[in-house]
Amino acid sequence: MRALLLCLTCLILLLPVAAPGADQPAAPISQATQGCLDCHIDATPGIVADWRRGRMAMKTPAQALKEPEAGRRVSAKKIPPRLMNTAVGCAECHTLNPKAHADTWEHGDERVHVVVTPTDCATCHPEEKRQYGHNLMAHARGNLINNPVYMNLADQVNGVMSVKGGKVALAKPTASTEAESCLFCHGTEVKVLGQVTLEDPNFGEMDFPKLSGWPNRGVGRKNPDGSLGSCSACHSRHQFAIEMARSPATCSECHKGPDVPVYKVYQVSKHGNIYYAMRKQWDMAKVPWTPGKDFTAPTCAVCHASLLVDAAGNQIAPRSHQMTDRIWVRLQGLIYSHPMPKDPDTTKIKSADGLSLATSLTGQPAAKYLINAKEQAQRKARMAKVCGSCHSQGWVQGQFARLEQSRKEADAMVLAATRLMQRAWDQGLAKGLAQNDSPFNEYIERVWVRQWLFYANSTRFASAMMGADMGVFDKGRWDLGLTVEHMHDWMELHKKK
Amino acid sequence: MRALLLCLTCLILLLPVAAPGADQPAAPISQATQGCLDCHIDATPGIVADWRRGRMAMKTPAQALKEPEAGRRVSAKKIPPRLMNTAVGCAECHTLNPKAHADTWEHGDERVHVVVTPTDCATCHPEEKRQYGHNLMAHARGNLINNPVYMNLADQVNGVMSVKGGKVALAKPTASTEAESCLFCHGTEVKVLGQVTLEDPNFGEMDFPKLSGWPNRGVGRKNPDGSLGSCSACHSRHQFAIEMARSPATCSECHKGPDVPVYKVYQVSKHGNIYYAMRKQWDMAKVPWTPGKDFTAPTCAVCHASLLVDAAGNQIAPRSHQMTDRIWVRLQGLIYSHPMPKDPDTTKIKSADGLSLATSLTGQPAAKYLINAKEQAQRKARMAKVCGSCHSQGWVQGQFARLEQSRKEADAMVLAATRLMQRAWDQGLAKGLAQNDSPFNEYIERVWVRQWLFYANSTRFASAMMGADMGVFDKGRWDLGLTVEHMHDWMELHKKK
Amino acid sequence: MRALLLCLTCLILLLPVAAPGADQPAAPISQATQGCLDCHIDATPGIVADWRRGRMAMKTPAQALKEPEAGRRVSAKKIPPRLMNTAVGCAECHTLNPKAHADTWEHGDERVHVVVTPTDCATCHPEEKRQYGHNLMAHARGNLINNPVYMNLADQVNGVMSVKGGKVALAKPTASTEAESCLFCHGTEVKVLGQVTLEDPNFGEMDFPKLSGWPNRGVGRKNPDGSLGSCSACHSRHQFAIEMARSPATCSECHKGPDVPVYKVYQVSKHGNIYYAMRKQWDMAKVPWTPGKDFTAPTCAVCHASLLVDAAGNQIAPRSHQMTDRIWVRLQGLIYSHPMPKDPDTTKIKSADGLSLATSLTGQPAAKYLINAKEQAQRKARMAKVCGSCHSQGWVQGQFARLEQSRKEADAMVLAATRLMQRAWDQGLAKGLAQNDSPFNEYIERVWVRQWLFYANSTRFASAMMGADMGVFDKGRWDLGLTVEHMHDWMELHKKK
Repeated sequence: MRALLLCLTCLILLLPVAAPGADQPAAPISQATQGCLDCHIDATPGIVADWRRGRMAMKTPAQALKEPEAGRRVSAKKIPPRLMNTAVGCAECHTLNPKAHADTWEHGDERVHVVVTPTDCATCHPEEKRQYGHNLMAHARGNLINNPVYMNLADQVNGVMSVKGGKVALAKPTASTEAESCLFCHGTEVKVLGQVTLEDPNFGEMDFPKLSGWPNRGVGRKNPDGSLGSCSACHSRHQFAIEMARSPATCSECHKGPDVPVYKVYQVSKHGNIYYAMRKQWDMAKVPWTPGKDFTAPTCAVCHASLLVDAAGNQIAPRSHQMTDRIWVRLQGLIYSHPMPKDPDTTKIKSADGLSLATSLTGQPAAKYLINAKEQAQRKARMAKVCGSCHSQGWVQGQFARLEQSRKEADAMVLAATRLMQRAWDQGLAKGLAQNDSPFNEYIERVWVRQWLFYANSTRFASAMMGADMGVFDKGRWDLGLTVEHMHDWMELHKKK
Repeated sequence: MRALLLCLTCLILLLPVAAPGADQPAAPISQATQGCLDCHIDATPGIVADWRRGRMAMKTPAQALKEPEAGRRVSAKKIPPRLMNTAVGCAECHTLNPKAHADTWEHGDERVHVVVTPTDCATCHPEEKRQYGHNLMAHARGNLINNPVYMNLADQVNGVMSVKGGKVALAKPTASTEAESCLFCHGTEVKVLGQVTLEDPNFGEMDFPKLSGWPNRGVGRKNPDGSLGSCSACHSRHQFAIEMARSPATCSECHKGPDVPVYKVYQVSKHGNIYYAMRKQWDMAKVPWTPGKDFTAPTCAVCHASLLVDAAGNQIAPRSHQMTDRIWVRLQGLIYSHPMPKDPDTTKIKSADGLSLATSLTGQPAAKYLINAKEQAQRKARMAKVCGSCHSQGWVQGQFARLEQSRKEADAMVLAATRLMQRAWDQGLAKGLAQNDSPFNEYIERVWVRQWLFYANSTRFASAMMGADMGVFDKGRWDLGLTVEHMHDWMELHKKK
Repeated sequence: MRALLLCLTCLILLLPVAAPGADQPAAPISQATQGCLDCHIDATPGIVADWRRGRMAMKTPAQALKEPEAGRRVSAKKIPPRLMNTAVGCAECHTLNPKAHADTWEHGDERVHVVVTPTDCATCHPEEKRQYGHNLMAHARGNLINNPVYMNLADQVNGVMSVKGGKVALAKPTASTEAESCLFCHGTEVKVLGQVTLEDPNFGEMDFPKLSGWPNRGVGRKNPDGSLGSCSACHSRHQFAIEMARSPATCSECHKGPDVPVYKVYQVSKHGNIYYAMRKQWDMAKVPWTPGKDFTAPTCAVCHASLLVDAAGNQIAPRSHQMTDRIWVRLQGLIYSHPMPKDPDTTKIKSADGLSLATSLTGQPAAKYLINAKEQAQRKARMAKVCGSCHSQGWVQGQFARLEQSRKEADAMVLAATRLMQRAWDQGLAKGLAQNDSPFNEYIERVWVRQWLFYANSTRFASAMMGADMGVFDKGRWDLGLTVEHMHDWMELHKKK
C-alpha cells in the first residue's frame, strides 16, 4: 500500500504543473474584478480566458516585487497597498485614475474606463513609461500630424479622387480613413464624443462612452487621460505576454510595408532564418534573456529593447523602452538618412530650405537638431556590444562600415532622382512647392516619392540587417536605378511632346 | 517485487501514448485496405505514414459516432454498417460509389478510383458537403469559366504572345496553362480520357486511367462522379487533419496573390501577429474550439467556419462549411464591392449595362441578385458575435463602420480610374468593348485592371482585417492614387503625341 | 524504503536528459578549446552557448563514427586521432590546416584562423565537400564575376548614379556594395589585407587579420585557404544543426527576391502550407529521414539534398550536397530556361550569338555545354522517385508535363519581349550591344530585364513547385503580358514623339 502511495506521489510530481489557461489563476481575484468576470465570462469569454493564461493573473504585485531584480518585471519600488495582494485583473487596470480618464463611465457597479493607458500601466511599470516617453514612437502621432510636409503626403495618399471631363480632383481624407491608414500605427486621438447605446449579443442594450478614433492601438495614441502611446501595441491584450513583445511578428504590424520594410528584411536575414528554423528550442519568456541559451539569434527586441545577460549573469545590455538607445542613424520615414534627432518630438526641426525635415531637399542635415558624433558613437558601441554576443568585433565593424557606405549610396540615389524632380519643376513639367502645389500629387512626383520612401529605405535596411536581396532586386538598388531611368525617360517624352 | 511492478506500471502510464505515426494505428484495418497497404507501403510510403498519423486511422466510424455531439466530427446519423468497425483507410474511400466514378478501374484485386470527392466524403460528413455546396467556392470553376467577362481577362493573362514586325499577337491559352493558372484554385474538370501505362519505380509498368486536368485540388473542381469541389483543398491528404484546415497557411495557397491578398493582410494584422507569436501554446485540434483557452487570436477558420464555444460550453458560433454565412459584402474578384450574391452560382447575374457582373462599370449593384439589407444584417450580427468573444461591441461596431467607409472609398477610386478608362475608349486612345475589342489587353487597360483587381482589393481587405500598411503603401491607397495619376499622365501624352 | 528508492529511480529515468544548452556538453573538451572558451564565454557568450547545444559539442568523432551508417553524419572513414576523443570545439576547427590559411594569426596561445572553410570541414565530412564542389553553388562567385554579361547587369544595379543638367551618369560600384549586394549570396573573396587593431568591449585592444569581403557567408565564397564555399551558409553557426539546413527559412536568405522567388512559391504551395501548419509534429533532425513519419510534406532539402528512407529503412534517395543531382532544367539566373549545364563552372559556355550565356538572345540553347536528354531523364527519374513517396506516378507525370509546357510558354513570353527590345535597338530608340552600350541601362531595357529576371522566373518556379498565384498575378503570367504591352506602348510613344 505504501508503495502504491509512493508511486502515486511520483505520478503527481511528474504531472505538468497546472497549464496556463486552467480554470483558476494562481493569484486571488479582487471582489471588483470578480464582479467584472461574472459578466465578461459570457460577454467577452476570449479575453477572460486569455487573461487567465497571463502572468498578471498568476502573480500578485507583492509576489512580483519579491523576485530577484534581474528577473523582476515591475519597475515600481512601491505599489499601492490595495493592489498588492490580488491578481492584476479587469478592475485593477480599468478603474485606475478614474478622474484623469475622460472615458470613465458607470458600468455595472463600477466607474470603469475603456482605454487603459501608459499612465495606468505606470502604476507598476513607471520606468518603462518614462523611457517610452523619450521614444520617437510615443510621439509618432504628433510628429506626423504636426508636420506639414508629411501631412501633405498623407492627404495625397488618403484623399479620395474623382474624375470629371478627364480632370482629377482630390477630396480631403475622412477621419475614418486617416484612422485606419497612417494613424493606425501612429495613433489616433481618442476623445469622448458623448454616449452611445449598443446592443450586446448577451446582455442586450447597454450604454458606453462614444469615442473618436476607436478602435486604435497606435504607438503614439493620444489617450483620454492625456497620455501618449499604447502598451498593448506590443504587449497584446489580454495576456500581455513578454513573448509577444519579443516576437518579430509583433513588430511586423507596423514595420512591414515598402515604406518600413524591416520585417521583410528580417525574415530573409540569417537572424530571421535561424529564428524561424530553431525557435522551437527557444525560451521566449525568460527574464533576463541569455543569448545562445534562451535564443540563438536576435529578434527585434534583442537588439532594440531587451535586458540581456551572459550565462554567468553579467549584463550585456539593459532593458530599455527607449528603442533609440542603440540606434545612431535614422533610416526610415524620411528623404535622406541622418543621425537620430535629439528630441523625440521632431516637429521642432527645420531644414536649411525651411521644411519640417531633418535634411534639406538636397540632403544637408539640420545638424543642430541631431545627435552629435559622440552620442552616435556611444549608441553604436551599445549595439556593438549586443552584436558581440555572437560576433567578433572584426565582423561587427565590417558590418557597420557597410551600412555607413550603403546609406550614403542610397542617399546619393535619392539625390539623383531629386535633381531630376527639381528640373521637372523648374522646366514646368510638373508643379511643386515653388508653384504653390503639392510636391506629391502628380504622376512623376509619386515616382520620385517611391525612390526615397520605398527603395532607399529598403536598401538601407537590407544593409543594416543583412537582408540580401531586399537591398538588390526586391525594392532595393535595382529599383533605385530603374526610378532614375524612368524619371529621365519621362522627362524626355514630356519635353518633346 | 510488488513495488517494482507498481513502479513499472507508473512508468508505463507515464509514457506518451503511442505517438501518431507509430507502426500500428489504433483502429482495425479492413482486409481490403490491408491489401492496398501491402503494396503502398513501398509505392507511396509517405502517404501511408501520413494517414497513420491521422484521426481516420485511429478511430472507427462507430467510435466517432459515440462521441458527444459538440466534439463529434462526423455529421452522418447513420453510416453503412460495413464501414463502421474499421479504420477509414485506402479502400474505404477509394472504392466508394464505384459506378458513379468514371475514374474507377481494376487495380490489383479492387475496383478503385483515383479522385475521392465530396460525395465520397459525404458518406460520413453529409452536412459538410451540403453546406459546402451552397458555398461560392464549390462553384468557383463554373463561376469563372462560364463568365465571359472573366474569361476574357483570363485569356489575356494565360495566352502566349508573339511579336512580328513590332506587332503583338496573342494565342489562346493551353489547357495545361489554364490548369495551373486560374483553375489551379478554381478547379479543373477531371475527366477520364482513356487509359495510360506508367512506369512505377517500385512495381514497373502499370495501367491507370488517363485524366484531364490532373493533378488538381481546386475548391470548385468538377469530379469524375459529377460532384463539385475537393475536400483535400483544405483538409490536406492523407492525414486530413482539422489543424490543417484551421491553419492560415492552408488558406494562403489560394488567398495570397495581389488579387486576393487576404493572407498577406492577416500576417501583419494583430490577429496574425498573435498567431505567429503565441501558437506554440494553442490547441489547433480541439473540437469544439474555445477562444482564449484553445487559441488567443482568430485564424481564418475561427471567423469563417469553426464551431466556437465559451469555457462553459455555450455556443458562440456553429460550424459551417458555407463560408459566406458570416460574410455580408463581397470584397474580391470583382470591380466594385457589393452585397454577397444570393445564389452561389453567380453566372446568372447581369449588371445594368449587360455584363456578367454584380455591378455595372460605374458601380451600380445588380441588386436583385444580391442579398438584401436584412440578410446582410443577420450575417453581420453572426460575425459580430464571433468578434465579441474578445472585443466590446463599441470596438466591433467602430471596426465595421470603418470597413463600410473604406470599401466605399476604394470603390470611388475604382470609379475615378474607370472614368479615365472610359474616356480613353471614347477618345480612341484604346479599344474596349464598344470597339469589339477586349477591355483587358492594351497597356492602359491593364493599368486600369490593377486598380480594382489588386489595389482596391488590398485596401478593402486591409480595412476588413486591420492590415495597416496593406491598405496604405503596400498595394493600398498609395497605389490607388498613383494609378489614377498614371492613367491621367498617359492620356495627356497619348493625346498630344 | 526500497520502494521509495525504486520510485526515485523511476523519477530519474523519466527526467528529460540534460537539455541541449545545459552547462556542460556531453563530450570532453580539449585543452586547446578550453583555452578558447575561458575568454569567449565572456567575449562572445552567445556562440559559446549555441555551440554547446549542438551535436558537435555533444559527441566525439569517435562516437560519431560508431553510429550505424544510415544515421551517420560524418562521411570520413578515418579522422585524425588527435581529434577523435574530444568535442569538435573552437580549436578543433579554427586551428586546422594553419599553413593553408592566409588568415592564421597568433591569438592567445594558439595559431588561429577566422574563416572555417569547406576544406576544414572535410576533415570529417569529405564526401559532402566533394559533392558540393560539383555544385553550381560552389562556383556561384566565379560564375558571376567572370561572366561579362552578368557583370554588365551587376554594374548597372550596384553603381551609384548622379544627375547633372538632366543627364544621368553612373559610377562603378564600390567593393563594399558588391559585397552586400550580389556577392552577399554568391560569395566574396576573403583575402588578408594586413592587420588591424580592434577594441573589444571586454578585453580592450586586440590584433586581428584585416580581411577583404568580410563578413560573408556566400555559397561560393573564395576562402583564405583557396577553397570555395561556406558550409555555414546553410548549417548556421555555431550549432551547425541539420534542422537548420533542412528548414526552408534557411534557403530563403538567398532564394526569396523576385529574381529567385523560390521561397515565396514554396510558402504558398501545398507543400509549404503543410509545413507551416503541421511542423510542430515533425522531427527535423532525424537521420535518415522518413516521409510521412518524420515529416509530412517536403522542405527544400527533402527534394534536393536529404537522405530519405521508407518506414522499413529502404532508401528512397541518397544524401547529396550536389543539389543539381535531381534537377534537369535550369529555371533561374538566365534569360531562357535550358537543360542544366554539364560543368558547374559555367564561364566556359558560349551561346550561338557569342554571349556568355547558355542560350542565344532568341533562346537557342548552347547544347554542347548542357546535359543531354539521357542525363535529363535520369535526374527527372530521381526526382520522380522522391515525389513518389506521396504521389502516384500519374500525378507526378502530369505535374512534370505542366512544368515542361509552362517553361516553354514563359520562354516564349521572354522572346516576345526580346523581339520588341531588338526592334527598339534596331530603330535607334535605345542603345544595346550593337551600339557599344550596355543592354541593361536604359529605362526600356530595364523593363525588358524584368521580363526574364523576375516574371519568367516566377512563372517557371510557380509551375515547378505548384505555387498557384505566383505564376498568375503575383509577378507571373499577368506581368509577362503587361510587360509586352508596356514595351509596345513605349515604342509607339517614342517613335511618334
